[in-house]
Amino acid sequence: TLESSQTLTTKNMNSYLLVLSGALVFFMQAGFAMLCAGSVRRKNTQNTMLKNLLDACGAAVAFFFVGYAFAFGGDRVSGGGPSDPNRTGSTFLGAEQFVGTGDIDLPFYFFQYTFTAASVTIVAGTLAERCQMAAYLCYSFFLTGFIYPVVAHAGWSNYGFLSPANSNPLLGIGMIDFSGSGIVHLTGGTTALYATYILGSRRGRFYDATTGRPLDVPKPFPGHSVSLQMLGSFILWFGWFGFNPGTALLLVDNPYQAEIGALCAVNTFLASSAGCISALVIKMFLRHRQTGEFSFDLVAAMNGALTGLVSITAGCATVEPWAAIIVGLVGGALYLGASDLLIKCKIDDAVDAVPVHGVGGIWGLLSVGLLSAPERVRQAYGTNEHPGFFYSLSEGHSDASLLGCQVLGTLFICGWTLVTMLPFFLWLNFMGWFRCESVQELVGLDIAYNLGASHHGDAFKGEDEDVKE
Amino acid sequence: TLESSQTLTTKNMNSYLLVLSGALVFFMQAGFAMLCAGSVRRKNTQNTMLKNLLDACGAAVAFFFVGYAFAFGGDRVSGGGPSDPNRTGSTFLGAEQFVGTGDIDLPFYFFQYTFTAASVTIVAGTLAERCQMAAYLCYSFFLTGFIYPVVAHAGWSNYGFLSPANSNPLLGIGMIDFSGSGIVHLTGGTTALYATYILGSRRGRFYDATTGRPLDVPKPFPGHSVSLQMLGSFILWFGWFGFNPGTALLLVDNPYQAEIGALCAVNTFLASSAGCISALVIKMFLRHRQTGEFSFDLVAAMNGALTGLVSITAGCATVEPWAAIIVGLVGGALYLGASDLLIKCKIDDAVDAVPVHGVGGIWGLLSVGLLSAPERVRQAYGTNEHPGFFYSLSEGHSDASLLGCQVLGTLFICGWTLVTMLPFFLWLNFMGWFRCESVQELVGLDIAYNLGASHHGDAFKGEDEDVKE
Amino acid sequence: TLESSQTLTTKNMNSYLLVLSGALVFFMQAGFAMLCAGSVRRKNTQNTMLKNLLDACGAAVAFFFVGYAFAFGGDRVSGGGPSDPNRTGSTFLGAEQFVGTGDIDLPFYFFQYTFTAASVTIVAGTLAERCQMAAYLCYSFFLTGFIYPVVAHAGWSNYGFLSPANSNPLLGIGMIDFSGSGIVHLTGGTTALYATYILGSRRGRFYDATTGRPLDVPKPFPGHSVSLQMLGSFILWFGWFGFNPGTALLLVDNPYQAEIGALCAVNTFLASSAGCISALVIKMFLRHRQTGEFSFDLVAAMNGALTGLVSITAGCATVEPWAAIIVGLVGGALYLGASDLLIKCKIDDAVDAVPVHGVGGIWGLLSVGLLSAPERVRQAYGTNEHPGFFYSLSEGHSDASLLGCQVLGTLFICGWTLVTMLPFFLWLNFMGWFRCESVQELVGLDIAYNLGASHHGDAFKGEDEDVKE
Repeated sequence: TLESSQTLTTKNMNSYLLVLSGALVFFMQAGFAMLCAGSVRRKNTQNTMLKNLLDACGAAVAFFFVGYAFAFGGDRVSGGGPSDPNRTGSTFLGAEQFVGTGDIDLPFYFFQYTFTAASVTIVAGTLAERCQMAAYLCYSFFLTGFIYPVVAHAGWSNYGFLSPANSNPLLGIGMIDFSGSGIVHLTGGTTALYATYILGSRRGRFYDATTGRPLDVPKPFPGHSVSLQMLGSFILWFGWFGFNPGTALLLVDNPYQAEIGALCAVNTFLASSAGCISALVIKMFLRHRQTGEFSFDLVAAMNGALTGLVSITAGCATVEPWAAIIVGLVGGALYLGASDLLIKCKIDDAVDAVPVHGVGGIWGLLSVGLLSAPERVRQAYGTNEHPGFFYSLSEGHSDASLLGCQVLGTLFICGWTLVTMLPFFLWLNFMGWFRCESVQELVGLDIAYNLGASHHGDAFKGEDEDVKE
Repeated sequence: TLESSQTLTTKNMNSYLLVLSGALVFFMQAGFAMLCAGSVRRKNTQNTMLKNLLDACGAAVAFFFVGYAFAFGGDRVSGGGPSDPNRTGSTFLGAEQFVGTGDIDLPFYFFQYTFTAASVTIVAGTLAERCQMAAYLCYSFFLTGFIYPVVAHAGWSNYGFLSPANSNPLLGIGMIDFSGSGIVHLTGGTTALYATYILGSRRGRFYDATTGRPLDVPKPFPGHSVSLQMLGSFILWFGWFGFNPGTALLLVDNPYQAEIGALCAVNTFLASSAGCISALVIKMFLRHRQTGEFSFDLVAAMNGALTGLVSITAGCATVEPWAAIIVGLVGGALYLGASDLLIKCKIDDAVDAVPVHGVGGIWGLLSVGLLSAPERVRQAYGTNEHPGFFYSLSEGHSDASLLGCQVLGTLFICGWTLVTMLPFFLWLNFMGWFRCESVQELVGLDIAYNLGASHHGDAFKGEDEDVKE
Repeated sequence: TLESSQTLTTKNMNSYLLVLSGALVFFMQAGFAMLCAGSVRRKNTQNTMLKNLLDACGAAVAFFFVGYAFAFGGDRVSGGGPSDPNRTGSTFLGAEQFVGTGDIDLPFYFFQYTFTAASVTIVAGTLAERCQMAAYLCYSFFLTGFIYPVVAHAGWSNYGFLSPANSNPLLGIGMIDFSGSGIVHLTGGTTALYATYILGSRRGRFYDATTGRPLDVPKPFPGHSVSLQMLGSFILWFGWFGFNPGTALLLVDNPYQAEIGALCAVNTFLASSAGCISALVIKMFLRHRQTGEFSFDLVAAMNGALTGLVSITAGCATVEPWAAIIVGLVGGALYLGASDLLIKCKIDDAVDAVPVHGVGGIWGLLSVGLLSAPERVRQAYGTNEHPGFFYSLSEGHSDASLLGCQVLGTLFICGWTLVTMLPFFLWLNFMGWFRCESVQELVGLDIAYNLGASHHGDAFKGEDEDVKE
């Protein structure tokens, strides 16, 4: 009949668009790999990219066996209500549909896999140049198989205690994290922070490589190829247009689906651009105060754009375009501050993933609580009772329900990763499995683990000054 | 009801496909960045890519604040007729919907932003290796905020004097520039020409770096990485499948939409391939005559393909596949001729953007006037009264209305950029803000502006022969 | 009417999604180019990429003039039945719709072009660093214009003798090669094998470059950039999400279309991940037995992932997700074995395309015969009478019809390319047109054919140890 044919067309369309959006998100793996490869010294290129590659592959296996089941098992994944009208309330974990069994919504399955893979690989760059392969693989499986699914379940599942799709959402609204500033990026970013804190800084970065005395000025370890960094950043940016608008495809019965998807795209380009400009300009003026000269810091600009992207990911469906620009501007500034703070604390992050994904993720969650427009919240979540705090203030109320949910969500994600990942990394470290040996770090992990140098004919010719120490 | 559900599905589909197509067009920024990075000497890599990055970000801001309003403010953007039945005629500029206000068609908004960003970044490569950052940023804002919107308004808005969507189109048909050979590429290409003419050639390219005497043979400044050039070209090519077929998504009530979109894709791959082969083969024979040996010029082949892509962009919806091959073949030949001519005129274009986007853009506009098939014009524009000139001739008429519109459009774009950009660049130059200092050019703009070299451990080791002068 | 509007929406959707999927497949050209560029020594980078570029362009021309007509001319391309109810049976070649004439289904046309281009460029890497340009171009035209179309006609056309869409399919079912493990990849892979066998190994690879005596240990010729190899692999992976799910868009009247498309995406990520892990782990243990140390081989991991992708391409629509993992695991292992075997046979494959595409292609075809689930076969092909052999066994039957078709298809593809390409390469070789001169190989093909080195300032500085021999 015409009606069934109509339903079929709609289903086909949603399904295919979700597959294509997921493909864009998958391509972000290439972005992370190129960004990491360009950000490390040449002698560690292979090793870093291998971690990115294995994140994608390990995430697939972990997701198939347990990750999906823990995150979304038993859910009615598309649409707003719980799968079983008799089943309500919150659970800590899903526990159905292991190893791809049961009636799985395949496009959703694919799309969620790509998110899992994105979350885990955020950490790869932070730990670059000094982490043992085996330890990294353990971390990778642990995060994708258990830690991330718990967060995704809490925030997105119909039975998650933070989820707005819960039949009885937290504070009447739940945490709004539309595409995962918190669930995907903060989970990765905060894990990266704990990991690098335990792992320690790269040899010679903050402490003299021979005497171990703190350096007056941290030694910069610039990446070996800005072109690859730039390429990686642009690939990530491109993939984000699958990440954010793609999520709107999950709102299958929502009449505003098309508008929400397009709003996500518009907010995404505005916030990233604002973040880029903000980081570049602030950095320029800071440098000018220090040196008296204006200079342009390309890496700051790139990371500012990425922080803008991370920041808008939570609120891309619920803030207005002008607010997206504010989210981006603040995100770019926060990135610079956080990056400096890390260096002052002598915490070594080879790609600045903690400032970008961690701090950007927190700001993303909070900005939703401040700036979500009532009408946009209503379109995406079906209620406009709890808008962003500034909107509430401007109407003479002071409804901080949404902001409260966002704060609770932030604390949950930071706390959950703290109580699980911190002991895990401490244990790895205690066993001596976490950090590679000093000599391996000196010659480079490519030679130590990967049987050779990345750029043949180059690596032994003293082009990396570090080798000559 | 079934009907509203049907309407909704169609709307959702169009909206999402436009977002995905726009994402592909956005990814062209990465293509431009890689192409430019590979085409310059290593010492200028960062600086060049930063310009590409800031083009994307600056375009976003300018587009949001004023660009969209100037180009399409007040338009009914989807479909064929003017928004207000009582409002007809032409305007020079739109003047509504500044800063994202008003009832904006968000997918269209996103798609148009990506076009703006593409137009502005064409110039980055041409000016590489010698242009001051501040001057470039001024140019970038000026073009995206005002110059390009005027052209887009004229050619695509319902109130544009060249637009076929005008209620009373020029010569009864208007200028057909389906995806923007003229509006996007020629605007960028012709601006690049004026800019490089004022800016002057790179030090040592046509004149001896010390004495200033003209060189007998221009010194080639080959790019530092053909791999990056190739990657950039392929990314652009890929993005073009969002650029051309994506535009057909704007024909929302057109029953031939799907066919037009697919025709755009087919014509795109045929013209680019023909352009590549044409440029490669002609160059091979020219070299053979000069040197007696056959050799293959990869850069000519790549730029031939890009010129084919630019050339077919205007007519992708209105020429037959066989004609697309002709458009590409001629485009590749014109590229070679224009590239040689520029060198003879001692005009220095670091990435050959003027021959590719400028000359390719002109040929694209004119080829529509010559080769547009009546039936294809009817499907895309609703009238077949004014086909391409060759079709008219073959039917015994000599209707040059369409060709006339194309010529007028070409003149308008070249003239408009001439009267605005030329004085602007002259002023920049007069103030001493345009060209960087000689010593900056010598050490490379990465060190001059960007605090360091792109490839650490390389840049100071004399790999760039220029440094040793 | 509502019905026609509904039909139009469905058609538009299918058409556009096919164009976007085709664009992803086209982007695989960039993946091949980067993979090949990174896998060769620096002195051959340009030359290798030029071959990739010309494959894409030559394929376009050959496809337009004759390729499409030979492969699908006269077919009703969308849906299941033959175009003319009175016309049944099998033909060797199509012979209608040359040079784009006739009533062409344009989205299908574009999509099939991208497949042709993928097939031909598989060979480029294998022959890298020693093949003459002219010979390569001859091969490229011959394969895309004739050899590949015959295979595509046999396997996918309504009149192909192997095609399940044939009105009277082979053994009642025909060969199931959903997206082309055999038709695209095996055709390329087996051609690569014959070509490299005739062409001989690179100078110094298996035989001493001066004396010609066999080396005790083959000399590894590692690629000059692992970053480019990685980038290429990820781009290919990304493109595969157009390759496999995109093919399901051809099932226009199939009510399971959406589910099949998503299954293809899920199977694709599972098989590739399994292939990557399998190749990496097995290689690690083999190396451990040989050297006593664990090490991680990034190139093996990448090629394992690619082999997983090739292997699942035939069965992505007909095997369950758990079976996709098995397909990938076996694929990764077969890759390693085949790669070692080639080296033992002193057959030189610069990018391991024969193990990846050839052996992966064979395993892909056979795995369909073993592991296809009856219900999945029914959904995609309308009959579940002949499932995979293991399913048949588990139900107490031993129906090897499907497996038989797969074996016959494998033999046909290997045999057809053998009887056509082998004489062709022998003839090229006999005429002295195939292999470049020894001195050209020594200095590198970039200088020999392409007028210069790929990385200016590097190539003559002895960074490629080979130059110093």
